[in-house]
Amino acid sequence: MFKVCIIHGPNLNLLGSREPLIYGKLTFEELNEQLISYGQKLGLDVKIFQSNHEGALVEKIQEATGYDYLIINVAAYTHTSIAIRDALLATKIPAIEVHISNLAQREAFRQHSLLADVVQGQIMGLGVFGYRLALDAVFHYLQGGNTIA
Amino acid sequence: MFKVCIIHGPNLNLLGSREPLIYGKLTFEELNEQLISYGQKLGLDVKIFQSNHEGALVEKIQEATGYDYLIINVAAYTHTSIAIRDALLATKIPAIEVHISNLAQREAFRQHSLLADVVQGQIMGLGVFGYRLALDAVFHYLQGGNTIA
Amino acid sequence: MFKVCIIHGPNLNLLGSREPLIYGKLTFEELNEQLISYGQKLGLDVKIFQSNHEGALVEKIQEATGYDYLIINVAAYTHTSIAIRDALLATKIPAIEVHISNLAQREAFRQHSLLADVVQGQIMGLGVFGYRLALDAVFHYLQGGNTIA
Amino acid sequence: MFKVCIIHGPNLNLLGSREPLIYGKLTFEELNEQLISYGQKLGLDVKIFQSNHEGALVEKIQEATGYDYLIINVAAYTHTSIAIRDALLATKIPAIEVHISNLAQREAFRQHSLLADVVQGQIMGLGVFGYRLALDAVFHYLQGGNTIA
Amino acid sequence: MFKVCIIHGPNLNLLGSREPLIYGKLTFEELNEQLISYGQKLGLDVKIFQSNHEGALVEKIQEATGYDYLIINVAAYTHTSIAIRDALLATKIPAIEVHISNLAQREAFRQHSLLADVVQGQIMGLGVFGYRLALDAVFHYLQGGNTIA
Amino acid sequence: MFKVCIIHGPNLNLLGSREPLIYGKLTFEELNEQLISYGQKLGLDVKIFQSNHEGALVEKIQEATGYDYLIINVAAYTHTSIAIRDALLATKIPAIEVHISNLAQREAFRQHSLLADVVQGQIMGLGVFGYRLALDAVFHYLQGGNTIA
Amino acid sequence: MFKVCIIHGPNLNLLGSREPLIYGKLTFEELNEQLISYGQKLGLDVKIFQSNHEGALVEKIQEATGYDYLIINVAAYTHTSIAIRDALLATKIPAIEVHISNLAQREAFRQHSLLADVVQGQIMGLGVFGYRLALDAVFHYLQGGNTIA
Amino acid sequence: MFKVCIIHGPNLNLLGSREPLIYGKLTFEELNEQLISYGQKLGLDVKIFQSNHEGALVEKIQEATGYDYLIINVAAYTHTSIAIRDALLATKIPAIEVHISNLAQREAFRQHSLLADVVQGQIMGLGVFGYRLALDAVFHYLQGGNTIA
Amino acid sequence: MFKVCIIHGPNLNLLGSREPLIYGKLTFEELNEQLISYGQKLGLDVKIFQSNHEGALVEKIQEATGYDYLIINVAAYTHTSIAIRDALLATKIPAIEVHISNLAQREAFRQHSLLADVVQGQIMGLGVFGYRLALDAVFHYLQGGNTIA
Amino acid sequence: MFKVCIIHGPNLNLLGSREPLIYGKLTFEELNEQLISYGQKLGLDVKIFQSNHEGALVEKIQEATGYDYLIINVAAYTHTSIAIRDALLATKIPAIEVHISNLAQREAFRQHSLLADVVQGQIMGLGVFGYRLALDAVFHYLQGGNTIA
Amino acid sequence: MFKVCIIHGPNLNLLGSREPLIYGKLTFEELNEQLISYGQKLGLDVKIFQSNHEGALVEKIQEATGYDYLIINVAAYTHTSIAIRDALLATKIPAIEVHISNLAQREAFRQHSLLADVVQGQIMGLGVFGYRLALDAVFHYLQGGNTIA
Amino acid sequence: MFKVCIIHGPNLNLLGSREPLIYGKLTFEELNEQLISYGQKLGLDVKIFQSNHEGALVEKIQEATGYDYLIINVAAYTHTSIAIRDALLATKIPAIEVHISNLAQREAFRQHSLLADVVQGQIMGLGVFGYRLALDAVFHYLQGGNTIA
Repeated sequence: MFKVCIIHGPNLNLLGSREPLIYGKLTFEELNEQLISYGQKLGLDVKIFQSNHEGALVEKIQEATGYDYLIINVAAYTHTSIAIRDALLATKIPAIEVHISNLAQREAFRQHSLLADVVQGQIMGLGVFGYRLALDAVFHYLQGGNTIA
Repeated sequence: MFKVCIIHGPNLNLLGSREPLIYGKLTFEELNEQLISYGQKLGLDVKIFQSNHEGALVEKIQEATGYDYLIINVAAYTHTSIAIRDALLATKIPAIEVHISNLAQREAFRQHSLLADVVQGQIMGLGVFGYRLALDAVFHYLQGGNTIA
Repeated sequence: MFKVCIIHGPNLNLLGSREPLIYGKLTFEELNEQLISYGQKLGLDVKIFQSNHEGALVEKIQEATGYDYLIINVAAYTHTSIAIRDALLATKIPAIEVHISNLAQREAFRQHSLLADVVQGQIMGLGVFGYRLALDAVFHYLQGGNTIA
Repeated sequence: MFKVCIIHGPNLNLLGSREPLIYGKLTFEELNEQLISYGQKLGLDVKIFQSNHEGALVEKIQEATGYDYLIINVAAYTHTSIAIRDALLATKIPAIEVHISNLAQREAFRQHSLLADVVQGQIMGLGVFGYRLALDAVFHYLQGGNTIA
Repeated sequence: MFKVCIIHGPNLNLLGSREPLIYGKLTFEELNEQLISYGQKLGLDVKIFQSNHEGALVEKIQEATGYDYLIINVAAYTHTSIAIRDALLATKIPAIEVHISNLAQREAFRQHSLLADVVQGQIMGLGVFGYRLALDAVFHYLQGGNTIA
Repeated sequence: MFKVCIIHGPNLNLLGSREPLIYGKLTFEELNEQLISYGQKLGLDVKIFQSNHEGALVEKIQEATGYDYLIINVAAYTHTSIAIRDALLATKIPAIEVHISNLAQREAFRQHSLLADVVQGQIMGLGVFGYRLALDAVFHYLQGGNTIA
Repeated sequence: MFKVCIIHGPNLNLLGSREPLIYGKLTFEELNEQLISYGQKLGLDVKIFQSNHEGALVEKIQEATGYDYLIINVAAYTHTSIAIRDALLATKIPAIEVHISNLAQREAFRQHSLLADVVQGQIMGLGVFGYRLALDAVFHYLQGGNTIA
Repeated sequence: MFKVCIIHGPNLNLLGSREPLIYGKLTFEELNEQLISYGQKLGLDVKIFQSNHEGALVEKIQEATGYDYLIINVAAYTHTSIAIRDALLATKIPAIEVHISNLAQREAFRQHSLLADVVQGQIMGLGVFGYRLALDAVFHYLQGGNTIA
Repeated sequence: MFKVCIIHGPNLNLLGSREPLIYGKLTFEELNEQLISYGQKLGLDVKIFQSNHEGALVEKIQEATGYDYLIINVAAYTHTSIAIRDALLATKIPAIEVHISNLAQREAFRQHSLLADVVQGQIMGLGVFGYRLALDAVFHYLQGGNTIA
Repeated sequence: MFKVCIIHGPNLNLLGSREPLIYGKLTFEELNEQLISYGQKLGLDVKIFQSNHEGALVEKIQEATGYDYLIINVAAYTHTSIAIRDALLATKIPAIEVHISNLAQREAFRQHSLLADVVQGQIMGLGVFGYRLALDAVFHYLQGGNTIA
Repeated sequence: MFKVCIIHGPNLNLLGSREPLIYGKLTFEELNEQLISYGQKLGLDVKIFQSNHEGALVEKIQEATGYDYLIINVAAYTHTSIAIRDALLATKIPAIEVHISNLAQREAFRQHSLLADVVQGQIMGLGVFGYRLALDAVFHYLQGGNTIA
Repeated sequence: MFKVCIIHGPNLNLLGSREPLIYGKLTFEELNEQLISYGQKLGLDVKIFQSNHEGALVEKIQEATGYDYLIINVAAYTHTSIAIRDALLATKIPAIEVHISNLAQREAFRQHSLLADVVQGQIMGLGVFGYRLALDAVFHYLQGGNTIA
């Protein structure tokens, strides 16, 4: 059974109450339950990690060597953390970056991701549903990536 | 039955032979067949349009008022066409932008999309599989966007 | 009888339905009829041309040698088309640039016109009435430009 | 009877003698007489104000609350005066900006107007005839802006 | 008895009527009365000066040698006047800069103050109450700056 | 009784010994005692929090929902932390930003605050006395913001 | 016999009449005849293609797989067309870029070529004679590139 | 007898007391007396004008048509006044720009002069002695500019 | 006996396994042992500290007052941490910055160090041997810096 | 017999051994012999000059008044030497610039030539064969530039 | 007797024949004779040095320790030579920079002088007469700089 | 016995007298003697070369093929010489860059080295002791680079 770790960054623990027009009303706990459950249907063992601390996120990625894939949304650190970028490069586990909102519609300092060119790909602006699509993509590539449907 | 139009921009008709290390070996015809077929499974009526002409893409979008959703990859015009942006703003049909390769790993002039802030969201770097994920997202939002799985 | 050609660029054929808060409710056909009619009062033979294709606009300008004046609004191509600029330089017919909306109140990429320094002058932000003012100016300069009123 | 104030900025009092290749040979006094006279034909009460002092222009605009429309050409201050911009924002009288020469053909520091996005529209490069066009536009909008001709 | 001069720049004389959502409803006269009165409670002799003319503000600062402290809000000239900056450097009287609105929430050209690095400090975004805080700070430093409360 | 939390960022715990020419000789403990005491005089319940960890500051702000106002000086993180900005936006408690030194007189990278446009206002360059002024402003606005003195 | 295609972009069909001080008096037809004739002397089969349409140029390059070399001058599109660049990358036929005038002596927006780093080399400023030199270079490299003379 | 006008800008009236390390101890009145006296030795009729008002400097230059040469130091307005530049261009009297201090050793915003390219030349960093050198140059060129010594 | 603290930043704990082509094969533990041992030969008491947390690095530097010298390599935080810079300025212990790889050969965002101008000097690109050279320099300067060899 | 001087800049004397993948295997001596020999066939007297010293190149160009044409490749000085540019402007002999490699495929600091707009034209990226093409162009223009073939 | 060295940079040896509209018709030899002669009148021992070699200019300045003043015009090297700047800083002899033409009216790359902030002052745009003015200034300051006339 | 060449650039010959606060009091001759002597202890044959001429430095590096390592400090040319960079690339001898002062604390134009990414590493800010450390590093890598101590 393949193992996947979903890594959430700062303030995502407030999901459901924080700026719901941008991030939606689903709570952080509900989201994670649904992702674990959907992973089970695909035959993926999904683990969740969240931290508001850059160093803790660095260390989680360093220690993630037992996983087959990462799904990663480090929120505000996306734009400033070279340390998280370095950790991803060091572990070499394939990763997909997710953003709940469409960053292109937001402030200038959110337009650039320091991770974008070291992950496989990026899904953004499709709400929390973007995490589910990332799980589909993980499943697709772990199967060999042969067929679309 | 919901109607979806997938709009391909310049040089995508060469898919399968053009830089296969970046864009994959699946031909353009094979890709479109698989997308139509996958749409049918979801209950979506999927149409395909491709052109190398900016003006033709503008007009296709102008005339797309009968569709419920657009999936759009205008390739090189992504970075230069204000006319396509204006057409999208004029028609107001929701749209998802797809890019086969991870633009963040390519030339500087491919880092900025003139469409990104007028579409709902963006999927990139996940190969032609990104089109399938876009169909899933279209289906999800046309159902009301309530459940993840 | 002097001959004037009014050249409309991409998406202007949608006038009346496209973003009416910005561009007004008058349809494209109604606008053109009124401009032809106003031209007749001044004794000007007014022709209309519209295209969404950059190449077609280039060729229209190349072939416009029979006209005494051009009134030109190439919309989105205003900001990107060096080819239209080159065609204007090649034909050397005097031209006035019109923009319906006030570009200074819109997106950053609409702030710069590649045509502005090769036309005689510019009228913008005065709605479709700007076209009528351009006809007055054409008439004024074809008469020798001597008196203001 | 509607009241219109035409506000001229620094060095425009030299009109007729200052760089006539750019600004024309009509003197400042002649221009103003013709504009007042043309206004009378349209049924507009036209007043003229000129100053080389930024503060005096600011105060004229502050005190312009009795006017229905402003036609404004603050010349060199167009590019540097936030104070005049603020005064226009404070009075809220609709205004049209005129420039005699085509600024796009001149020095880099004349390419940007700090007023452009707080006025209704802009006419430039059409010589002093631009003032007359501005009076036509004022008349048009004070009548309700319904018909073009 | 210590003497303090509060120097107001262009358009502040419109306070109460100019964009009240940003600047508040208190009139300019009411504000000055309250500041003089609050100064009296602290034992400070408060004088008020306002001008819309850059040159007049320069000269007021040049002649301010009899004052112990300046409180200064030159509004729009904050961002463009090197002459006012030079006058402040020449007189060497300590000064505190006040801005009624939060400049960081406004246009890009209001983000930089040419005075900020030649005054002692800056209070902004706290409405006209910022002037009162500046009087408290003046009093504090004229007493020797020893205790906070 | 209103509750206020003063949040200090990295290196402020060294106050009194760190670069005293810039930050003053008052120790961190003395400062906090005086602020609590001054708050009591105004009828405000003042709490103090300090951390050198960005994540800890994020979490303190997330959990600050019981407070009526924040006074915030996150020092070096002012210029780099989007995560703290996001936490402030998520909690929606009004906040005033304080800086002890005049940032405009320091290094280029200290000229921009990522918080400035999401707080109510900013006090800088007035030494530790700026915290007291912030308490006055908090009191003023919690009373309804009606009178200056 | 080797096959070479010379691809001309927008407005080059006006050669001989368009700005002859810059582009020379030789007409487009005369130029092409001379190039075909010179190619025959070298033993090269030279074909000519011209279009004012970006899309047509893209497609010509896409379909150019039967040629051994391209000589390309896409005029105004040189500076804006990522689509032509992508087509060149897709076909992988070696190409030499020619410009009749010396672009370094012209407007700023003509200083950068989007093709320069995907072609083998560039000849500019040597008039229409540059095309003949390009044919010599094509012949040289198709012979193996061994001797200079 | 040739007539020369020396035009001083804002804050120069403070000469002698303003930042004497930069500007010297000679007072403004003493300087002007010495310049008039030195002019008399050369046979030049020297007039002095000073103002802190941009508009007054503009008007002085407009009205300077009776002078043979201007020596100009508009201090802080050097870097911001397009209106003074325009007035110089309008009057066409030859002018030499003087700066007492070496601007290259001062703040970044003092590095650029808006007048430098519309005057004949510039003398800076040589203290008030620079004015005397300017008088020598004026004399030299009014004599025909033939001999150096 | 002089005391030296070597401070390692994020991801350096992975030394030996992380991108060995760039950082070498020596493990983090082996490196530290060798540095302690080499310090002993020189008569230096060498301590080691590593953390992936910015805040922990700030605090280590704050508390380093018992050391005579710091050798510091905060890796990714080199380019983003103003807080670490502030801590170094506050403690005032002399420090030498080391980087294992040659930053000038890497990504643009690694080209600038926020610490470089507050440390004594910098050694980079000489592999882990750079740490040993730093120990030699520490020894040299603690001896008075008199002789080279 | 026409005289041509080929001027080579720094490091070109290493041709054949220096980065042969970029510059080719032909040695500097062999290249020059072939160019002289090819010139003889055309009836041109070809001289060669090489220096690694900027000043020596300046002086060679100053003294080149006896030549009819220059072919110039000053290598690294292309991007930094205003002195060589000035010397070319002073001598006024027509010149063609050659670069062996395609500068557009190299480092950013090699993208701009300080000579490009003061020479007649430029040939780059065509290897040492570019020198021969330059000789052909010299011959063509010295004959009057009438026929292509 | 005071000693002064006038240092001329590249291409100035061509004075009189090089672009005479910009640099005048006086030859280099004539200029130097007149400067030596004028120096004698003032009681200054004037020496002349010219070189086209950056290194030679560096060395002349290094060895200039016997001079009381330098007058320096290093022409094209003004804008690119840090080495000459360093030599000036090392010798510490006061220097005045002269430019014959008005650099502000020329190419962008001539707008910045690397020497301007390490010399005492600058004279430009006053033709070769600027050298004589520099001699006057040298004399003035060597006398103590007390009187203007 | 390994051979090492230490290459010094412009103005370093003044060591000991030039700005001793920055560069130290050791003379150039003393420094070189000590470095030769220290090299002998390590078993390295150390040669010294200094020039103020860019071309001479280029040629020394071109001819350095008999050396095993270069230690290079080209001072001011570090920031401007592409020719020296090209020479280093051509010879391919490993090199270490040394700077006596900490460039990060100096002028903006000294912050970038054109050599940094073509040398192995860089030592700066450690005074002339940096040269000795470079010799240690040379010795270390010539031995195979196996042990730190």
